Parts: sequence; C-alpha cells; structure tokens
Amino acid sequence: MRDAYHEELEALTGRLVEMTRLVRTAMSQATTALLDADLELAETVIAQDDGVDLLHAEIETSIYELMATQQPVAVDLRTIVTSLQMAADLERMGDHAGHIAKIARMRHPESAIPPGLRGTIVEMGSIAENLITKAADCVVSRDIRLARELEKDDDDMDRLHRRLFRVLLAKDWDHGIETAIDITLAGRYYERYADHAVRVARDVVYLVTGGRDMDAATTHLP
Amino acid sequence: MRDAYHEELEALTGRLVEMTRLVRTAMSQATTALLDADLELAETVIAQDDGVDLLHAEIETSIYELMATQQPVAVDLRTIVTSLQMAADLERMGDHAGHIAKIARMRHPESAIPPGLRGTIVEMGSIAENLITKAADCVVSRDIRLARELEKDDDDMDRLHRRLFRVLLAKDWDHGIETAIDITLAGRYYERYADHAVRVARDVVYLVTGGRDMDAATTHLP
Repeated sequence: MRDAYHEELEALTGRLVEMTRLVRTAMSQATTALLDADLELAETVIAQDDGVDLLHAEIETSIYELMATQQPVAVDLRTIVTSLQMAADLERMGDHAGHIAKIARMRHPESAIPPGLRGTIVEMGSIAENLITKAADCVVSRDIRLARELEKDDDDMDRLHRRLFRVLLAKDWDHGIETAIDITLAGRYYERYADHAVRVARDVVYLVTGGRDMDAATTHLP
Repeated sequence: MRDAYHEELEALTGRLVEMTRLVRTAMSQATTALLDADLELAETVIAQDDGVDLLHAEIETSIYELMATQQPVAVDLRTIVTSLQMAADLERMGDHAGHIAKIARMRHPESAIPPGLRGTIVEMGSIAENLITKAADCVVSRDIRLARELEKDDDDMDRLHRRLFRVLLAKDWDHGIETAIDITLAGRYYERYADHAVRVARDVVYLVTGGRDMDAATTHLP
C-alpha cells in the first residue's frame, strides 16, 4: 500500500527529475544563444533560472518536512539526504547555463565564439547535454552502471576544455583579450556543469550502495 | 546533562570550525604563493586540500549516523542538515584556494600577477580571509547579525572582481593572453570563495531562524 510518506518520497524524485529537465534545456539553449548570438534565447535562459531555484527551495522544504515528521532510515534516509545534495548540484548547473547565456547577451550582436572554436563549443554543449540526460536516467533508474559512463564523458569534457586553452595560447590567436576572457569563462562553466552532473550520478551510487567508492559500485550490481 | 547525542552534535560543529580554519589558511597561503611566485607554498596548499576533503567526508558520515540513530527535530535537525550544506561549501572553498595555488605553480618562477594588479589581488585575498573568519564566527556564535556583514563584504569582493576585468580590457593592457587568462580564472576563484562563505553564513541564519529571508533575520534577534 502506498502511504503519504512514500508518495512524498516519490514527489521528491519527481522534482529532481524536473530540475534535470530544466537545466538540460537551459544548457542547450545557452549553447545555441552563445553560438548564434541569439539575444532573445539568452534572455529566456536567464529568466527561466528562477524556476530551477524555486524547485531547489521546494526540495529543501520537503526534505525538512520528511525528516521532521518521519524517521527515515537506510535507503530512505540516503534518498532524502542525497536529494538535498543533488538539488544543490542541479541548481548550480542552472547557474552555469545562465552564466553562458549572459556571455551571449553581453557580446550580442556579435557571437562570443570565433569560427575556429565553434566546433569545440558545439562538442562541449553536446557532452553537457549527454551528461545531464544520463544523470537524469541515473536518478530515475538508480542504475549505477550509468554513473561510470558519466565519469568517461566528463573526461571528454576536460579534454575539450584543455583544447580551448591551447587555442587561446597559440601564437596565431588574433581575437583579442575580450574574446579570450569570454572563452576562458565559458569553458569553465561547461566544465563545472559537467562536474556537477557527475556528482549527481555519484550521489545515486551512494544512495544505492551506501558507499562513495565508484570502483566498488559495480560489485553491488544484481 | 550532556549525552552522547549532544556531544556528537558539538563534534560536528567542531569539525566545521576546523574546516573553516583549514580553508582560511589555504586561501591566505594561496594568495601569498600567487603574489610571490612561491612554489613551495603553492605545493603545500595543493597537498593540504586532502585534509579538507577528509573532514567533509567525516562530517557526511557523522550526519548519516546522527540521523539514523536519533530522531532529530527542530533546531537539531536544522543543525545537522545545514552542517552538510556548510561542509559542502567549505570543501569548495578549499578547492578554490587550491586552484589559485595551481595558477601560482603553473607560472612559477614568474608571478602570474602583473605589478598593476597586485594591490587588487591583495585586497581580494584580504576580503576572502575576512569572510571566512566571519563565517567561522557565525558558525560558532550563531550570531546572525554577522551574516549581514558578510553580504556587504561580498559586495566589496564583486567590486574588486569587476575592477580586474576593467584592467584586463583597458587599451593599455600589455601582459598578453596567458596572464589575462590567469587573472580571469583567479578572479573567478576569489569571487566563488566569497560566495561560498556567504552561503555558510546564510545557512547559519536558516539554522537559527528556520527561514531563508536575510532581511527578516534580524527580527529574530533577542
């Protein structure tokens, strides 16, 4: 029988999944706004970050209620506490998408991304979307094998991040300081977004296994 | 009478205070390493970040134990849950100090900071230290008036952060792209460090008042 307690726990997961959906859309739109110097889209991303913050606050409130009115133990307790941590990570991911949209807005009507780096930014945006999609799958399915995949995708993000710096520091860089600053910050935001997605997946591993060891994670598989 | 439960709660606060001490020292040393191109000091900061991470993990474990074995309510519950959030913020502050130390290490034997920006970096380092000192005071004293002061100090940090960009984007900037990237990232790390310190103070307000409204905070004063 479903009781109010377990319904509330499910609602908590539902809110987390809704957060993943919002921050995925935000990052996808932020990347487009950055590449296409799309001011309207940038403004949309910036405005919609409030929705992410609101969900974060709702999750926090519901967690306090659950803990104060129930005595959650074992996996329920871990679900509640890791939800708080995941919500914090997802909130930061929304912020990072917003920061990228703000770069797009600041450089409009120019694009902040010079032609030689568009491919790299497209790839970073695509990995970011991939990561949040997998993190969302992790949250729903609690399939901890997926968590390993996120670590690998994050390595790809780091590789692209380093490529940005190689281009910026090459002798033939001729796009000036302002563009270099934009790229430096945008690169950092993509890299941080990816890191937070990995942390969400790691929290799922903790939730399922009760441990933080990613290598040991697969020994808990059925 | 002190029982094991309240002793464990106090130990939790003790570990948080120890984290503030470590990340204050880390940032102070990272700033010195950055300004003086002190490789040894930079390596010390980077190596000692493990200690911060370890405390974070200990706090997390002790929180699960407290929640699983006790049924904390009201202020105790808020103490436990906000401790988890504060520990996460403090851990990030240690990371940011470490990132600054890594810039110092990468540019050694040169200093990453050109003469015209040393004063600004000194000020940013000093505000960072101020912020973590006040955040630590907040954690110990639960004096929520202090939390307001942190918001003001954070505004000063943001002002200095903007000054960095003005210097970088001025027509007479002649320190090249590499230094511009270092300054952009270092500025971001100081600004983030400050933000996390403010979040720690906000968590103390939440702990004491049960609400997130900073303006309402003072109405809870005795």
